[in-house]
Amino acid sequence: MELARILRFRPRPAKVVGIDSSRPQKVVALCRKLLSDGGGVAAARLAADILREYQALDKASQLSFFDLLVREFSPDPNDIGAAADTYRNSPSPENLRKLQRVVEPPRQELFRRLNMAPNGTRALVELRRQVLSELAGRPELEPIAADLGHLLASWFNSGFLTLQRIDWRSPAAILEKLIAYEAVHQIQGWQDLRRRLEADRRCYAFFHSALPDEPLIFIEVALTRGISARVQPLLDPNSTVDDPEAADSAIFYSITNCQQGLRGVPFGSLLIKQVVEDLKSNLPRVKIYATLSPIPGFRKWLNKELAAKESFVVDPEIRKAVALLEEPDPLRDDKWPQDLRDRLISACAFYLMHEKRDNEPLDSVARFHLKNGARLERINWMADTSPAGIAQAAGLMANYVYEPDDLQRNHERYSRSGEVVASGRIERAARRLVHGHRERKQS
Amino acid sequence: MELARILRFRPRPAKVVGIDSSRPQKVVALCRKLLSDGGGVAAARLAADILREYQALDKASQLSFFDLLVREFSPDPNDIGAAADTYRNSPSPENLRKLQRVVEPPRQELFRRLNMAPNGTRALVELRRQVLSELAGRPELEPIAADLGHLLASWFNSGFLTLQRIDWRSPAAILEKLIAYEAVHQIQGWQDLRRRLEADRRCYAFFHSALPDEPLIFIEVALTRGISARVQPLLDPNSTVDDPEAADSAIFYSITNCQQGLRGVPFGSLLIKQVVEDLKSNLPRVKIYATLSPIPGFRKWLNKELAAKESFVVDPEIRKAVALLEEPDPLRDDKWPQDLRDRLISACAFYLMHEKRDNEPLDSVARFHLKNGARLERINWMADTSPAGIAQAAGLMANYVYEPDDLQRNHERYSRSGEVVASGRIERAARRLVHGHRERKQS
Amino acid sequence: MELARILRFRPRPAKVVGIDSSRPQKVVALCRKLLSDGGGVAAARLAADILREYQALDKASQLSFFDLLVREFSPDPNDIGAAADTYRNSPSPENLRKLQRVVEPPRQELFRRLNMAPNGTRALVELRRQVLSELAGRPELEPIAADLGHLLASWFNSGFLTLQRIDWRSPAAILEKLIAYEAVHQIQGWQDLRRRLEADRRCYAFFHSALPDEPLIFIEVALTRGISARVQPLLDPNSTVDDPEAADSAIFYSITNCQQGLRGVPFGSLLIKQVVEDLKSNLPRVKIYATLSPIPGFRKWLNKELAAKESFVVDPEIRKAVALLEEPDPLRDDKWPQDLRDRLISACAFYLMHEKRDNEPLDSVARFHLKNGARLERINWMADTSPAGIAQAAGLMANYVYEPDDLQRNHERYSRSGEVVASGRIERAARRLVHGHRERKQS
Amino acid sequence: MELARILRFRPRPAKVVGIDSSRPQKVVALCRKLLSDGGGVAAARLAADILREYQALDKASQLSFFDLLVREFSPDPNDIGAAADTYRNSPSPENLRKLQRVVEPPRQELFRRLNMAPNGTRALVELRRQVLSELAGRPELEPIAADLGHLLASWFNSGFLTLQRIDWRSPAAILEKLIAYEAVHQIQGWQDLRRRLEADRRCYAFFHSALPDEPLIFIEVALTRGISARVQPLLDPNSTVDDPEAADSAIFYSITNCQQGLRGVPFGSLLIKQVVEDLKSNLPRVKIYATLSPIPGFRKWLNKELAAKESFVVDPEIRKAVALLEEPDPLRDDKWPQDLRDRLISACAFYLMHEKRDNEPLDSVARFHLKNGARLERINWMADTSPAGIAQAAGLMANYVYEPDDLQRNHERYSRSGEVVASGRIERAARRLVHGHRERKQS
Repeated sequence: MELARILRFRPRPAKVVGIDSSRPQKVVALCRKLLSDGGGVAAARLAADILREYQALDKASQLSFFDLLVREFSPDPNDIGAAADTYRNSPSPENLRKLQRVVEPPRQELFRRLNMAPNGTRALVELRRQVLSELAGRPELEPIAADLGHLLASWFNSGFLTLQRIDWRSPAAILEKLIAYEAVHQIQGWQDLRRRLEADRRCYAFFHSALPDEPLIFIEVALTRGISARVQPLLDPNSTVDDPEAADSAIFYSITNCQQGLRGVPFGSLLIKQVVEDLKSNLPRVKIYATLSPIPGFRKWLNKELAAKESFVVDPEIRKAVALLEEPDPLRDDKWPQDLRDRLISACAFYLMHEKRDNEPLDSVARFHLKNGARLERINWMADTSPAGIAQAAGLMANYVYEPDDLQRNHERYSRSGEVVASGRIERAARRLVHGHRERKQS
Repeated sequence: MELARILRFRPRPAKVVGIDSSRPQKVVALCRKLLSDGGGVAAARLAADILREYQALDKASQLSFFDLLVREFSPDPNDIGAAADTYRNSPSPENLRKLQRVVEPPRQELFRRLNMAPNGTRALVELRRQVLSELAGRPELEPIAADLGHLLASWFNSGFLTLQRIDWRSPAAILEKLIAYEAVHQIQGWQDLRRRLEADRRCYAFFHSALPDEPLIFIEVALTRGISARVQPLLDPNSTVDDPEAADSAIFYSITNCQQGLRGVPFGSLLIKQVVEDLKSNLPRVKIYATLSPIPGFRKWLNKELAAKESFVVDPEIRKAVALLEEPDPLRDDKWPQDLRDRLISACAFYLMHEKRDNEPLDSVARFHLKNGARLERINWMADTSPAGIAQAAGLMANYVYEPDDLQRNHERYSRSGEVVASGRIERAARRLVHGHRERKQS
Repeated sequence: MELARILRFRPRPAKVVGIDSSRPQKVVALCRKLLSDGGGVAAARLAADILREYQALDKASQLSFFDLLVREFSPDPNDIGAAADTYRNSPSPENLRKLQRVVEPPRQELFRRLNMAPNGTRALVELRRQVLSELAGRPELEPIAADLGHLLASWFNSGFLTLQRIDWRSPAAILEKLIAYEAVHQIQGWQDLRRRLEADRRCYAFFHSALPDEPLIFIEVALTRGISARVQPLLDPNSTVDDPEAADSAIFYSITNCQQGLRGVPFGSLLIKQVVEDLKSNLPRVKIYATLSPIPGFRKWLNKELAAKESFVVDPEIRKAVALLEEPDPLRDDKWPQDLRDRLISACAFYLMHEKRDNEPLDSVARFHLKNGARLERINWMADTSPAGIAQAAGLMANYVYEPDDLQRNHERYSRSGEVVASGRIERAARRLVHGHRERKQS
Repeated sequence: MELARILRFRPRPAKVVGIDSSRPQKVVALCRKLLSDGGGVAAARLAADILREYQALDKASQLSFFDLLVREFSPDPNDIGAAADTYRNSPSPENLRKLQRVVEPPRQELFRRLNMAPNGTRALVELRRQVLSELAGRPELEPIAADLGHLLASWFNSGFLTLQRIDWRSPAAILEKLIAYEAVHQIQGWQDLRRRLEADRRCYAFFHSALPDEPLIFIEVALTRGISARVQPLLDPNSTVDDPEAADSAIFYSITNCQQGLRGVPFGSLLIKQVVEDLKSNLPRVKIYATLSPIPGFRKWLNKELAAKESFVVDPEIRKAVALLEEPDPLRDDKWPQDLRDRLISACAFYLMHEKRDNEPLDSVARFHLKNGARLERINWMADTSPAGIAQAAGLMANYVYEPDDLQRNHERYSRSGEVVASGRIERAARRLVHGHRERKQS
């Protein structure tokens, strides 16, 4: 009975102008066959055929195929209406089940069956990536992305992920993906990568059994004495390798989501937590777990404040600081007297602690770590002197500390009331900005 | 917004008489906490706590917890009605998505989050097993079984299964499970198992990465010359080991589903198909893939016919045969002249080919293999002389042949029209019964 | 030039009366061919042929083949004499090398080449086992055993061994060997084995890459509270499983050499040392490493003393004790007043500490542990109540303590002066025997 | 008794002028301690200490340590003389064994015990590499190299090697060693390596369990249609990847011994043989196994002929050819008319087939493949256009064909009589040279 419903596709004619519509239609025909065959012996082969045919489509035909997926594999509103009425009249479990079936798009079952093909999961992740990359121009494809997103979130449930340490003994096929994917601090080839896997570094990734060579997310850690204040020394491929037994701190300096097709499936929070646990049991001398993180929204926010008609953040010093940042050698030491630096750091502390949207910090990285229960510990001057670091955050970076015993409490305070847990130093810096404002106002 | 809905549980008071209702309520409270926390850092620990608390409940409390799962974690009919109306008025993707969310029981998301606990998947499979074992007496628990079944069918999608060969080098922790689970021809301890894993035998199982030591289903294969007609020689732990290189046939003599909690999730068809492929590439001299299968419903059906007021199956010979089967030494050779044997085999052939329900064979094993596209090849006399074999099927067993090139075609004929593909010999045997009937009628 | 020498076998005619000497001769011919071919492409196949031919020989022919190995593949005394003279006249490295080559039997190179066959190492270990089992009757085969022993000791150098933990996840093919080999406390089938691999037990073995499924030696460990005084509770397959986290002691209660063909290659000392290290790092709460060991020579020694014309060990009490041990229910509690027990334990302490041969303890187990640097800690009453335990040692067993920090010092004291390091309690017990003797003498 | 002998080192005073002789002496003292301790519990640690101390020595001290190894750990000539006399008087197995012990240098047992240290095998291979690299200047160290060579040849017996396929999934730690070691056609970084591991290439290496990350020897194979005549296309990192299923030939284009410390231990012949077998079973469509090999000695030999007073190889054409090879653009197509090319190829064919030393071909690569039983198939023009290829062999390369069924027969012909098995084409080319010579002579 269910299959009958799945098969009764709505007969809206496909009118795609200007391209050969026969090939996408052929793929759709195969999809219908796959849905109609109750898991038959040839289902896996059929699924493989469909994916191969789909991959052979040109860009325009793929878009056309997406359109067909939306139009022909969506639930039927009349069926839904009828099932909803039946249920309303008689809210039995059986009628609920019927309604549940009717509201699920046939697409969903199609995707489940496509997964039977060899490398099916990989193909579905890629399919979602493609759909997501088209969404800006074609919002009508959103239901495909949503359906696949729902399915993949269930399949990539954190109970199915395995944490693996990555080192120089890992397969090259995986290592080259780190080079390709690293988004925060680009890896400059194999020598750079090798340095990041030496004895005083750690690298961990989550994997799923269906994508054995594909890291889903990975994190890079430096074992140091004290909390690192600057990222360039950590990234230097020629730096000397320190004794990991002498380290008291583990600095998370990069975390990268690898699979765009899994956007929205959360991995990062669990990854950090499991890595902290692994480090705890393997490196008992390490006592501090902290990040060295970018502050991606700081200058953008600052520029907005500068452009605003009125802003209590802006004063002559801030204007001077921002002007300096646009000079050719923006961070030259002698340009920045201590109070100018402090002024900028105060603004940044204020930005991280108090600039919010929907009760959460405006800064995306702050949002992530604070929600995880970390504490905003320190803002560092000249921490990232790369052009990107200066453009984003005036060279500033933040340390967030993961104190295992405080994580749950901090997380709850954040979740309940949006409270940003920060060190006294940060709180004072943010307060100075407010006081400065008040003083200027009073004077 | 979604969470708000999930959390607004219906306030029906729990009235469980006669047992201490506080402990199940405590587990439910933890479940609500797990659902309310947006995947927080402590979610995995909370999930583990819930599962531990649940497992510590006594039987009565577990049932009480199931009741609460049904009553308090089901969708709200009013929400559903409202969302259905909204969608009817404006059938936009967004409104559809809202309806989809509303019809999904909060239970479902609860189960997904419980999966984050270590061994969570195993616990959920076990939970479903328990619910299924209660269903006969408590049909109201069916929604839990259905929700978990839906989830597990998605998680145990055949794309996530791995076929593994099992032999004497496999971990004892896995082998002891074969001994425990084997349902068709019981394994009598380690020596018996060892014989079933010798050079002239093969054993394969499906595994899922979340249950690494748990076979989901396994199949036992004997490599023989010719299609085996009798199962006892295959099961004899003291039989001599044959040279696998000399075999031309692979006889599937046992297939066992291991996880009751995964009942309804289909594994068998795919398993046989993958095993045939593996044998093909590793043992090129083997040309025939066939089963030696029980006929579980034959005597039950025969007894029904005997009891019926009228049956064209029943005649004096059949009555005599059935009477013989109830004597102390039922299969003693001299009791069974050839035509009496043929008579019984004809009845069995008719039973397998023509006795149907909903256009499918009445016999469950026949249904499985014929749907897979196998051909009913032969019915064997004195094939299973164990008490169970005589009680079920008068000692008869059937061979179903898996001819790789015919599977899809046979499967389609079966699916379209319920056609049973059988060898000429079987067809003739079945026809003899009908002719005999006609002759008797005419005479 | 070297090969020429190897090939010039001495022409003593083979006169083996009464058996068909042609087949061993054929194997020898193949052996010559293998030696003459400078590692040619077919060497591995030729080696495999030889081993197969050899294994197909009947017992008498194998012995005949051994004779040929001794007679025809030994060094030539004339060659040796000549090379020795040359070297004496001119002791250059080159002349030494020539002498070294001449004194090495061609057999040795033959064995090295046989190792090229698949499973060659296994076959050579088995060959040596067979030769060793014949030595009593045929001492002339000793050179084969010695040559193979030299080679295998080099190949099974401890640098090539890997320590593996064995548990219920280990391959059944390995576990069944534990059942077969266990020599100290026999394993009664799979249920008994399973108990010995539970959470409160540990089992470790050494493996060599050339014999992947063959444990070379294994040790069984119980995790307990306090040093175990009795072995039967440890062996009880129905005992409850204790929490390994609560244990403070690791009791080594059985250590078994598996490969008779490797007799004389020492594994035990290193095994214990590595196991102690592994336990230290994985179970930090365990502080005591001790054995519960048999005393295999105690009663044999005691009987000798009883039979001697004069012995200061023997007195009426000892006679009474020995008489009791020969009664039907020898260890019945009420038969043994405390002072009689103490008397027997004193005799045993004296035996272990002071009865020596070549400056080492007479007792083979004591010799092993004391040489390793362990301390003789305690002698336990009713420690092994099995018939064998009573027959060997009146039911007594000893604890030897492995104190990691003392091992080297104890070992050196033992090696230098044969000193037995023992606890104060043992020393006092041994002293009581001597005093008792003096007192009796004086009275 | 044996140990006593081992320890009685000859008392020649060490007079090493100009360096601090105390540190090597300290290492020697530790070595003596290791030898004197009968495999005591601390032996592994002591061995590790010795290796660490040794590695910390500067170059001069290491040489001094080598000297001490020669002088103080060699056999005693007097002991040898005495044992030889005893044996001559009474040639019993026991006296032979004593003589065998006496002629073995104590060094040998020292090396065996050093192997007990973690990574001991690696350290010993490295030690031999260092000694070998000093031999030219210090021939007196040869006994160390010989002793270690004997030991390592026994330990790296081909029965202990495992063949592993290397591909892009192999650990980077292994892959980087291929880049470092490749000696025939250098690997230009990771992209070059990646191309050599694509679907139409194969790479295999031998490993030993004691050096898990160290390939001992590796071979690179290209899957092609037809026997490759030119190496540059095979090496091009940007070439398109062919379908391996379409290939009929496997071309071995590079084979590299990795461990200088294992010089003289033969791996190559067995490697090729096992690789051919693996390819046969995995790629049944491949029918031809052949090399594309350098001819390292060709031009050196040609130059010698040119310089000789008389040579029947040399004629005006050869002189012209050699002159051309020294011009700036030596292989420019229009410079080489067909008969000039043929002339050079004829000379090369003659060189490979008939120029011998001790009845084996002068060319080292020819020697290796012909001894393995391969057939010299073809000499290719412009096969290696790299500067090295032109300098060594005028750009010529040879194909040797490995015909599995002929290997043993060819090998035997070669071994017996030095016969070079070659194709008719090669034989004709070589004959042309001889005929040309005769004609010139006659004219």
